[in-house]
Amino acid sequence: MNFTSEQRLDDDILEREFTLGEIPGILWTPASASASEPVPLVLLGHPPLGLHKMYPRLVARARRCAADGFAAATIELPGSGDRPRWDAAEQARADLRQAMAAGEPVSDEIIDALILPLVDRAVPEWRAALDALLALPGIGGPVGYSGGIISIGIRLAVVEPRIVAAGLFAGSFVPRAMFEEARRVTVPLHVLLQWDDEGNDRQASLDLFDAFGSQEKTLHANMGGHTGVPQFAGEDAAGFFALHLR
Amino acid sequence: MNFTSEQRLDDDILEREFTLGEIPGILWTPASASASEPVPLVLLGHPPLGLHKMYPRLVARARRCAADGFAAATIELPGSGDRPRWDAAEQARADLRQAMAAGEPVSDEIIDALILPLVDRAVPEWRAALDALLALPGIGGPVGYSGGIISIGIRLAVVEPRIVAAGLFAGSFVPRAMFEEARRVTVPLHVLLQWDDEGNDRQASLDLFDAFGSQEKTLHANMGGHTGVPQFAGEDAAGFFALHLR
Repeated sequence: MNFTSEQRLDDDILEREFTLGEIPGILWTPASASASEPVPLVLLGHPPLGLHKMYPRLVARARRCAADGFAAATIELPGSGDRPRWDAAEQARADLRQAMAAGEPVSDEIIDALILPLVDRAVPEWRAALDALLALPGIGGPVGYSGGIISIGIRLAVVEPRIVAAGLFAGSFVPRAMFEEARRVTVPLHVLLQWDDEGNDRQASLDLFDAFGSQEKTLHANMGGHTGVPQFAGEDAAGFFALHLR
Repeated sequence: MNFTSEQRLDDDILEREFTLGEIPGILWTPASASASEPVPLVLLGHPPLGLHKMYPRLVARARRCAADGFAAATIELPGSGDRPRWDAAEQARADLRQAMAAGEPVSDEIIDALILPLVDRAVPEWRAALDALLALPGIGGPVGYSGGIISIGIRLAVVEPRIVAAGLFAGSFVPRAMFEEARRVTVPLHVLLQWDDEGNDRQASLDLFDAFGSQEKTLHANMGGHTGVPQFAGEDAAGFFALHLR
């Protein structure tokens, strides 16, 4: 992990850009973090729109984490931002756009082609980032995962024992195979659903919530479309992490 | 409204029992309430088990209200506690017990007979209580309604303009006619659903949530049965009232 830039935000948050091999990322640590008093970490998931485009929303979430005494970190997804595209993913995106433009239902084949390779590629990268982040002085765990493509969150929650709580956003296509993986999730879950999300199948999201194996899971459904998550919903999610990471 | 007893709780909450005509009730006011600085009020709904039996849970909710600077009040439901029974209600309760003991589905006829007369009788009483409570020095509004039989909450939210926010518990039988009333609810709503509530139809609760006309409505679904509402869910509900009554 190489730090490539650093700046202070609000006097009490250190923002550092890094690269992990070819993968760019950003780490935010509160001033309270030190080698003798390491802080918990929240991994900030995000949609595949590129870190640069997502930065305003990511930094707002990182500020909320820092206010609770947590570090926050994120990495670029495979095929997003400046990272190389691959043909199959580009084809799946094109098929998705075409289906949506034609007002057709998005087939299971398109969803599988869009999501499954991304999960297979991204999850080992997030785990490698976790290795590097937890080796830093000042970052101690426990670790939470928050938001982004829900299938990545599901897979990470299943395979990565250092993640002790996950806040998931039921707002992206979910391959049928992920419902089986969801049954194997056991960490406490906080699931956010936008009730009128135009690009999301509400019943599928409710079925997915039902499928999760976690004994402690909470669904928060709010009005509004995909990007209309109300501010108080963010506060509730922060409360969830405060409960489980402190 | 006649006060019949009073005691201090925790040094800073005044608990007063009262009667409103034949109807017993309880009012809790925080020490901060005064004629010059009146406080908001939360009406505490409850199941028809009698105020005496419900007291421990009611006083816990009243304490949470007082901590937020709100008064809280409740009245006995028609046909509960020491209030006179009426034949049709007793028959409906007997029919319900019989259907449940036989493992049969509870028919719409039983639900209507059980709930609709209770709503018709209770709602004018809660409104009369509101008249009396808001006339007291120290109680100023705005008013929230919380919990109890959801159909009473729906009717109150529709007909009582002084109620500005409602926290509802989707855990009791809902007559089909109440779905139409739900469309006329416009105040902000915070709806709690126990995902595995043995006596509650989950899909009907989700349909009811969908039916509410409010632009701001939030559904919080948690694991566990009817009485297993986790403590953090109560905190979230308190946060909802803090947002809307302050």
